Amino acid sequence: MKIAILGYGTIGKGVFQIACENPHLQVVKILEREERFDQNYLDLFTSNVDEIVNNQEIELVVEVLGGYTFAEDAIEKCLKAGKHVVTANKEVIAIDIENLLALAKTNNVSLAYEASVGGGIPIIKNLKEIKKVNKISKITGILNGTTNYILTKMFEGNTFEEALLDAQKKGFAESDPTADLEGYDMMRKIAILSDLAFDTYIDINQIPQKGIKEISKEVVDEAKKNNQVIKFVCSAKLEENKLSVEVKPEYFPNNHFFASVNNEFNAVILETYPNDELIFIGKGAGSLPTSSAIIADIIDIKDNLYLENYQNINKYEINK
Amino acid sequence: MKIAILGYGTIGKGVFQIACENPHLQVVKILEREERFDQNYLDLFTSNVDEIVNNQEIELVVEVLGGYTFAEDAIEKCLKAGKHVVTANKEVIAIDIENLLALAKTNNVSLAYEASVGGGIPIIKNLKEIKKVNKISKITGILNGTTNYILTKMFEGNTFEEALLDAQKKGFAESDPTADLEGYDMMRKIAILSDLAFDTYIDINQIPQKGIKEISKEVVDEAKKNNQVIKFVCSAKLEENKLSVEVKPEYFPNNHFFASVNNEFNAVILETYPNDELIFIGKGAGSLPTSSAIIADIIDIKDNLYLENYQNINKYEINK
Repeated sequence: MKIAILGYGTIGKGVFQIACENPHLQVVKILEREERFDQNYLDLFTSNVDEIVNNQEIELVVEVLGGYTFAEDAIEKCLKAGKHVVTANKEVIAIDIENLLALAKTNNVSLAYEASVGGGIPIIKNLKEIKKVNKISKITGILNGTTNYILTKMFEGNTFEEALLDAQKKGFAESDPTADLEGYDMMRKIAILSDLAFDTYIDINQIPQKGIKEISKEVVDEAKKNNQVIKFVCSAKLEENKLSVEVKPEYFPNNHFFASVNNEFNAVILETYPNDELIFIGKGAGSLPTSSAIIADIIDIKDNLYLENYQNINKYEINK
Repeated sequence: MKIAILGYGTIGKGVFQIACENPHLQVVKILEREERFDQNYLDLFTSNVDEIVNNQEIELVVEVLGGYTFAEDAIEKCLKAGKHVVTANKEVIAIDIENLLALAKTNNVSLAYEASVGGGIPIIKNLKEIKKVNKISKITGILNGTTNYILTKMFEGNTFEEALLDAQKKGFAESDPTADLEGYDMMRKIAILSDLAFDTYIDINQIPQKGIKEISKEVVDEAKKNNQVIKFVCSAKLEENKLSVEVKPEYFPNNHFFASVNNEFNAVILETYPNDELIFIGKGAGSLPTSSAIIADIIDIKDNLYLENYQNINKYEINK
C-alpha cells in the first residue's frame, strides 16, 4: 500500500520509521511545510500538499501535522480525492468528526483516528468492539500525559512550579502549557470517546472544566495523609438517558486503579453491562506508542476491517 | 444466526440470557446432560449431543460444559459437522488448540476462545490485533480470580484458611481448590496466551509452577512492612529467541499496576515494541463478563471477522 505522511515532527518521524520496517507499506511522499527535509530521503519530501492530494498512486494519507485549520483542510481534500485518512489530530476529530465521517462515507474511504486519544492504548478499537455487545454507562480517563506527570511529581514531593519545569525539560509539556493545565486537551479527548461510546455529538465548548493550577503542595499533603491521590480526569456518564461530561481534578483512594497510573501513562475505565468494569492502561504520549497506533489503523484499513458505518445520531440529551 | 449451547451451568445460563436479548441470535438447542432442563424452555433442551451435531440449521455451537474428554469430543464433532465453535474451555484449548484449529480450517469454520482466558477482558482479540504491528516480549498475568481473592483477603488481615473458606462461601473457590491454589489453572491460561503471542506451542506439563499454600500470615506481614504486595502470577518471557514460561507468587511494590488488581479482578501486562507497556484489567470470573466475551466471539464470527489463519509454528525454543 502506497502512503503519504503529512507532517514530519516527532510522530511523523516515528510513523516513517515503523512504516519502513513493514513490508506491506511504502511511504512515497512526506509533507514538510517548512522545508526541513531529511537529506537522506530528499525525493520523498514536498512542501506542497496538493502534490500529495493529486498523486493518484497514494491510497492512504497519515495526518500528523497538529493544529486545526490547515490540517482539517488537508484531511478534507484527501478524503474528497478518494484517499483513506489516518490522523492523530484530536482537535480536528473532536470538532469535525461528523462532517469528516460523512465525507469519508460519500467518497467510499475510511477515516481512522485511534492515535488521537490515549497514545498507544487501543481505546477506539476496543470501544467499537465492546459496543457491539455491551451498553456503556461511564467512561473515566486519565488522558493527558503532561498533567499526570506533574501530579505524579507533586505526590513525590515537588511543588507545582518544579514539576511543570521538569515536565517542560523532559519535553512532555509545551512552552505554553495552558491547553494541558486547563483541561482543554482532555475536553477534546473525552468528546471523541463520548461521540463513539454514546452515539451523541458533544460540543467541546459545552464541557464544564476545571484545571489543576489550584492544587498546592498543601492540598497534596492533605490527600496523602488521607491515603488518597489526586488525578486530573475526564469523564462521561450516562444516567437516565442524560449524558454528563466533565474535566476536573478528582480524589481517589490509594488502592484505586488510577493510583498506580503515574508519569506519562494514560488510563481509561469503562463501566459496561454485561461485561462490568474494564480498564486499559498504556503510554499516552511518545513517538513510538502513538506511531504504533497509527500503523495499526493503516493495517486495519489495508485489511478492509474498517468500513465505517458509524454515525452520530444524538441519542441522548446532554447535561450542561 | 441459529446457535446451540452445550452446558447449562452458570456460564451457559448467562450466554442464554444475553443471546435472548440479541435480535441477531436465536438459541435453538441447549445440551443439559443431567437433564436439569429449564421448564420454561423445555422444547429447547436435550441430553443428547448428537441431536445438536446432526441438526443442519445450527450454524454455531457454544461449548461451556467444562471438563476435558466429553467437551473436547463434542467440539471436534461440531467442527467436523461444519459448525463454528465458541468455547470458554481453557483445558481443551490449552491442550488441544493445534489440532482443533487445523480441524476448523479443514472444515472452513471458526474456532474462538476469548472466554477461556481472563473472563471479560478482551485479551485474545487484543493480542491478535497488537501482534499485527508489535513484537511482544513479555506477558505477565493475574489470571486466577480465586487465588487473587484469597491473597487480597490475606492482605486485609485474614489467614489463608479464613480467606479460602470465604472464597468458597462466595462461590469463587471449588470445594477442591487444588487446580487454582497450585497454579494448574493459570498454567493453562498462560499456555493459551503464549501459543498466540509467540506462535509457539507450549506443553502445559513443562511449565514450572509453584502454588500459594506456603504464603503465611508472617510472609504477608513482612511484605506489607516493605510496602509490597504478593500476587499469584503467570508469565511468559522471550529473550534471545528463548521462551520462559512460569507460574508462581511474586512480590510487587505498592505502586505497581498489579497492586490495585484485587479480589476477583484479573489483569494482563504486555511488554511490546514499539507500543511499549499495555495493561488490561477486568473481571476475571462471573457469569456475565464471561458470557459477554462469548457473545462477542459469536458476533465476530457472524460478522466474518474471524477467518482464522493462525498456526502454531514453534518459532522459539522453550526454556525448561
